[in-house]
Amino acid sequence: LEKQGEMLCSSHQLAGLLHLNPAQVRKDLAYFGEFGKRGVGYAIPKLREQIIKILGLKQIRPVGLIGAGGRLGQALALYRGFEKRNFRVVALFDKDPFILRQSPMGLGKIHPVEELPRIAKELGIEMVILTVPAEAAFDVYEIIQLSTVKAILNFAPVQLPSTDEIVVHNVDLTMKLESLSYYLNCSSLPESLSEDDFSED
Amino acid sequence: LEKQGEMLCSSHQLAGLLHLNPAQVRKDLAYFGEFGKRGVGYAIPKLREQIIKILGLKQIRPVGLIGAGGRLGQALALYRGFEKRNFRVVALFDKDPFILRQSPMGLGKIHPVEELPRIAKELGIEMVILTVPAEAAFDVYEIIQLSTVKAILNFAPVQLPSTDEIVVHNVDLTMKLESLSYYLNCSSLPESLSEDDFSED
Repeated sequence: LEKQGEMLCSSHQLAGLLHLNPAQVRKDLAYFGEFGKRGVGYAIPKLREQIIKILGLKQIRPVGLIGAGGRLGQALALYRGFEKRNFRVVALFDKDPFILRQSPMGLGKIHPVEELPRIAKELGIEMVILTVPAEAAFDVYEIIQLSTVKAILNFAPVQLPSTDEIVVHNVDLTMKLESLSYYLNCSSLPESLSEDDFSED
Repeated sequence: LEKQGEMLCSSHQLAGLLHLNPAQVRKDLAYFGEFGKRGVGYAIPKLREQIIKILGLKQIRPVGLIGAGGRLGQALALYRGFEKRNFRVVALFDKDPFILRQSPMGLGKIHPVEELPRIAKELGIEMVILTVPAEAAFDVYEIIQLSTVKAILNFAPVQLPSTDEIVVHNVDLTMKLESLSYYLNCSSLPESLSEDDFSED
């Protein structure tokens, strides 16, 4: 809206864009303070600034990436979308000695993951993206627990638990396909969900 | 649980593993039929079979991948996790003529995206993963609409709308980082969320 030169927006307008209902939008924003004026709406530049503040992104957040030598790691290391929203991948790590000797094309230096605690402290890294294989995930998790890192975005195909010190967001790419598959199954084959098929025998 | 040789599980056990409450687990499963026996629990092999059926994954689901030449596309084309859960990437597409002349290492043939309608019909593809750049997303979306595809897992950094014919699941990788950043901000700087900071002036 800001790019379109708009200065004000109503909760109805926001709700329409977000596929939510206006009352929910008002309630959610009100949770953080009084941003809007009744009958006038929200001042867009101010609302934007406040949301950035709520998200803790007034300063660029330095992010570490562990598993940088893998395909998904490389894709995320070079993904330009993060920087646009105030995240910067500032350090790359891997466990694989082969990767450490010879970085993949276009990536900067990759550090042994054992150096995470020192480097994270130096660079103020509190957040890492994890793209290691399932079998490496728990070893790496132990190293992370020795560092200043407090949040993990985990793409490794294994569920890592959150603790009092570290919050983990597990991303399961296959689950998103499963959810779409469920949808297709429901819409194309409603009879496969009949009571008959699923009753106990 | 099945791999551990267990034959039965209770809703309490499932709820513990899933970080849900037992009543919710019972209610959700009951929505699809009567799988469990009161006081006995769920028979694990049967529950597993029924869930696979509910998800529409008794047969392997063929999936197309559009944007296969990009880094994320390559990573997902070669990701082994999909196949373990009955998805198979059966056809790769791209728009970029350079990619089409010379496939990246390790990938099979990449087709021009214009061939999607024909190939999707031939191979029974109803689901695609989209990893094209933002600027290509809408053009590709139009081609998808001419095909048998009914579900899109969209990694392009642009929101595509669902229609009556096509359901779109938009994956926003940066939003997951934002959500973690919000958490860090709340826990480390509670004073930044004080009323003072957010009140209207």
